[in-house]
Amino acid sequence: MSDIQTSYLTSLGISTVETITLLGQDLSEDLIGHVSFGELAYRLITLREPTPGEAAMFNAVLVALADHGFTPTAIAARLTWLSAPDAFQGALAAGLLGGGSRFLGVSEDAGRFLNEALSTVEGDLPSDDAGWDALATQAIEARRAAGGFVPGLGHHLHKKGDPRVPRLLELAREKNTFGPRLALFAAVGRVAPGVLGKNLPLNGAGACGAVLADLGIPQQMLRGVVLLARCAGLLGQLAEEMRTPIASEIFNHVEEAAQFRPLGGTPAEQPK
Amino acid sequence: MSDIQTSYLTSLGISTVETITLLGQDLSEDLIGHVSFGELAYRLITLREPTPGEAAMFNAVLVALADHGFTPTAIAARLTWLSAPDAFQGALAAGLLGGGSRFLGVSEDAGRFLNEALSTVEGDLPSDDAGWDALATQAIEARRAAGGFVPGLGHHLHKKGDPRVPRLLELAREKNTFGPRLALFAAVGRVAPGVLGKNLPLNGAGACGAVLADLGIPQQMLRGVVLLARCAGLLGQLAEEMRTPIASEIFNHVEEAAQFRPLGGTPAEQPK
Amino acid sequence: MSDIQTSYLTSLGISTVETITLLGQDLSEDLIGHVSFGELAYRLITLREPTPGEAAMFNAVLVALADHGFTPTAIAARLTWLSAPDAFQGALAAGLLGGGSRFLGVSEDAGRFLNEALSTVEGDLPSDDAGWDALATQAIEARRAAGGFVPGLGHHLHKKGDPRVPRLLELAREKNTFGPRLALFAAVGRVAPGVLGKNLPLNGAGACGAVLADLGIPQQMLRGVVLLARCAGLLGQLAEEMRTPIASEIFNHVEEAAQFRPLGGTPAEQPK
Amino acid sequence: MSDIQTSYLTSLGISTVETITLLGQDLSEDLIGHVSFGELAYRLITLREPTPGEAAMFNAVLVALADHGFTPTAIAARLTWLSAPDAFQGALAAGLLGGGSRFLGVSEDAGRFLNEALSTVEGDLPSDDAGWDALATQAIEARRAAGGFVPGLGHHLHKKGDPRVPRLLELAREKNTFGPRLALFAAVGRVAPGVLGKNLPLNGAGACGAVLADLGIPQQMLRGVVLLARCAGLLGQLAEEMRTPIASEIFNHVEEAAQFRPLGGTPAEQPK
Repeated sequence: MSDIQTSYLTSLGISTVETITLLGQDLSEDLIGHVSFGELAYRLITLREPTPGEAAMFNAVLVALADHGFTPTAIAARLTWLSAPDAFQGALAAGLLGGGSRFLGVSEDAGRFLNEALSTVEGDLPSDDAGWDALATQAIEARRAAGGFVPGLGHHLHKKGDPRVPRLLELAREKNTFGPRLALFAAVGRVAPGVLGKNLPLNGAGACGAVLADLGIPQQMLRGVVLLARCAGLLGQLAEEMRTPIASEIFNHVEEAAQFRPLGGTPAEQPK
Repeated sequence: MSDIQTSYLTSLGISTVETITLLGQDLSEDLIGHVSFGELAYRLITLREPTPGEAAMFNAVLVALADHGFTPTAIAARLTWLSAPDAFQGALAAGLLGGGSRFLGVSEDAGRFLNEALSTVEGDLPSDDAGWDALATQAIEARRAAGGFVPGLGHHLHKKGDPRVPRLLELAREKNTFGPRLALFAAVGRVAPGVLGKNLPLNGAGACGAVLADLGIPQQMLRGVVLLARCAGLLGQLAEEMRTPIASEIFNHVEEAAQFRPLGGTPAEQPK
Repeated sequence: MSDIQTSYLTSLGISTVETITLLGQDLSEDLIGHVSFGELAYRLITLREPTPGEAAMFNAVLVALADHGFTPTAIAARLTWLSAPDAFQGALAAGLLGGGSRFLGVSEDAGRFLNEALSTVEGDLPSDDAGWDALATQAIEARRAAGGFVPGLGHHLHKKGDPRVPRLLELAREKNTFGPRLALFAAVGRVAPGVLGKNLPLNGAGACGAVLADLGIPQQMLRGVVLLARCAGLLGQLAEEMRTPIASEIFNHVEEAAQFRPLGGTPAEQPK
Repeated sequence: MSDIQTSYLTSLGISTVETITLLGQDLSEDLIGHVSFGELAYRLITLREPTPGEAAMFNAVLVALADHGFTPTAIAARLTWLSAPDAFQGALAAGLLGGGSRFLGVSEDAGRFLNEALSTVEGDLPSDDAGWDALATQAIEARRAAGGFVPGLGHHLHKKGDPRVPRLLELAREKNTFGPRLALFAAVGRVAPGVLGKNLPLNGAGACGAVLADLGIPQQMLRGVVLLARCAGLLGQLAEEMRTPIASEIFNHVEEAAQFRPLGGTPAEQPK
């Protein structure tokens, strides 16, 4: 028998018989029809009302990250829907579960890299490109010395530059949200070829991480924003799978190309 | 060895070395900074550019459904993050997996009910309230005769009326997206007390289903839109869990109140 | 502030500072080293200690259902691990999420079909093959009259018969667990070609459903047993993916074969 | 148009019209009825046939880890089933998604710690307790110097010792599978109080990691084995939830104890 006297505090949704309150505002009167979905997501994460420029920039990042075609996660979602069409939520969840370190982690990694580099600055932040370039050089060299690689650089396809990067930089200036992470990220792009001795252009996922960190998204929530964006992309993929399916053909391709590999050739890892 | 010659067609994202195209448009030039995230989600699902009113209404539904406080799915997401803080995507997916028939299925069920009722109409749709009321009465009676209940009616808390319903009806008129499903849904609200003999007000989840169906969201995708909305709410819940955790206390409450029930009292189902 | 005085009852695991009890027994003294994992799973589900024959039969079903090669769910798990190798649990969960109606639901559907057919019998169950054949004929015809199809019949590959079926029937007789569901299922196999006018042999998934139902697994838990079996298969698939990966190649195949389909040709579903 | 000529190799399941082969053996003739489910899982992961002692030990670990009562993951699974009873696989997946670093990662961490310590040994492994104690002391001190903690030590409840540990050590000796990881793990238990200056007994999850590593389970697959064990426990939890539900009461407890926290008091993280 428990006699716990508890209260669970929340600043988000709470309801009474006659009202629904969200973030301390009346959902029906103050929010529905007044804020966009992107803006609401921003408020739910940060508990802060964005400026119009911040709201526009947050929406821009969500648009930039929503869909990338037939990614492994999109294919996984389609295959899951093929197997279990009775549970749409399962197909969506399967797609989101691929949102880990390798394909979706770049925004988070870039945000962390930039935050850490900024935290090493004592006194004022740089005030011109030369200053940012010096900080970027130092951060890249520190990362390389530690045996790590610099997140936000390089793309398996867009080898001459990711077209989203200049657009996001331009838009951040236009919307007056160009902050220190984006300044540092742009500097990384300028100095990296010289420091690393090879041409690795900035990628869009890294730029999104920089923008989001400048917008005040906590580092631990960066991956969450990417997943929200990807959620819309997966809805598109699943709606398309319903209209013009391909999962069954992918499955057939794999099944037909399957061949048995005798066990002898691949011994399991042995205990010492 | 497979010799399949295949092409997988898509109308969504596709990239080349220099470009990223989404929905046939240039992602950077035509979409980033030009469309809101909510509007992009609409386009990804329907392949159709919404009118400004449709985009506003779609955003309104996403806002209406985003968060409902400490739902079972919000608690499940928080508990999963408590157990596995290394994989944010897992906590989000766990929360979405509760998006099934009981707590999140009302929008989908209402959309299907309304679509089916409309499909019984031969000739023109009703042109006045009396006509809609007659159709609603007929649909409710048919449902009741089949032993089913009418989706979109009743709420475990808002027994005197869900405040989102009048707001969504008003906004749909204002945005010029008030279509036949919403007209029929409003009629259901008017006639249900008389037909069913008890006062069950319209609920917000049902109204959202009606709005989305009028916006051309395919029936099989209604649950997906609800899940997208809920995704933002879960981000809010998880961000709050990071700032001011409650999952550990919920777990302690359950653990302390656990008591053993001897087996004898609950025999398993026996084979005949 | 809540003042709930609650206790949550359980017959499963419960711990004190010095003991761990499971199913009312001392975990360390009575279970570890004394029961197989398959037997423990049976007890956890049914709260009943199986006979040695029942334990053997339950294990046999789990073995029969564990792996089926490159199924859509196996491919989804591999692709998810490719994307998010930092969260093994996500890849496993993605694989299990394909365990729905289409590819994994046959055991559950067959169990329900057999249970329902048995529940129509008033008085004693049949005592010979002729009696079972008559009941099977009646059940198949009722199902066909209702517009449904008979679960457990037919296989997309094993068109001349699924080799697991005779083995499971034989083993159930040997282990003395051959009950009314399996008797009826075997009868379905005998009479179906005549009643349906086409040769649809019994499949293994259906036979497993019949065996499990005879073992007293509640109908709502049949899918769970299949998922447990599949869990082991997915571990095999993911261990193999770690040794000799194929997911990346599947992804490349899809990416290379991707082609843009202009929007005009596929209008979204329109509101009436 | 793709012209890929590919074959996907597998040593697991593969089917023809008349046969089902698993691990190079005939599923029906060689496996069903001949191997336990636990043994099959071992083979699927390692591609190796275990000795009877190894199979018994692998089963013992799965039994030891299957259920721990009302863990956060068990509660999450029950809440998910409450919300979405139409998709059993979703509830199970939600439960498994809690199988991450904090509550289920100990076996994996312990296995890695032991493997790494053993890899530092040049020449022969220790041949007596004194030798193992010296190696354990060295490993603990190295871990402490690196600022990490030693996995497998301590339990939030079993402060005087986890009863599974002596049982697993005894059984491993009895089954002739007592290998170097377990020898080192036992030594860690002997020397830790002296080296760390506080009494932290060995825990069962750590012991399971040591046993599994000695059985040749690859380090990357240790978490997978724990998840398989937990899968059976979750089936028990969900079967119990169906018989005697508690999730709804947990939800009510949280909902009733919810209180609004005004935004002002918790400002979001601000950009620098």
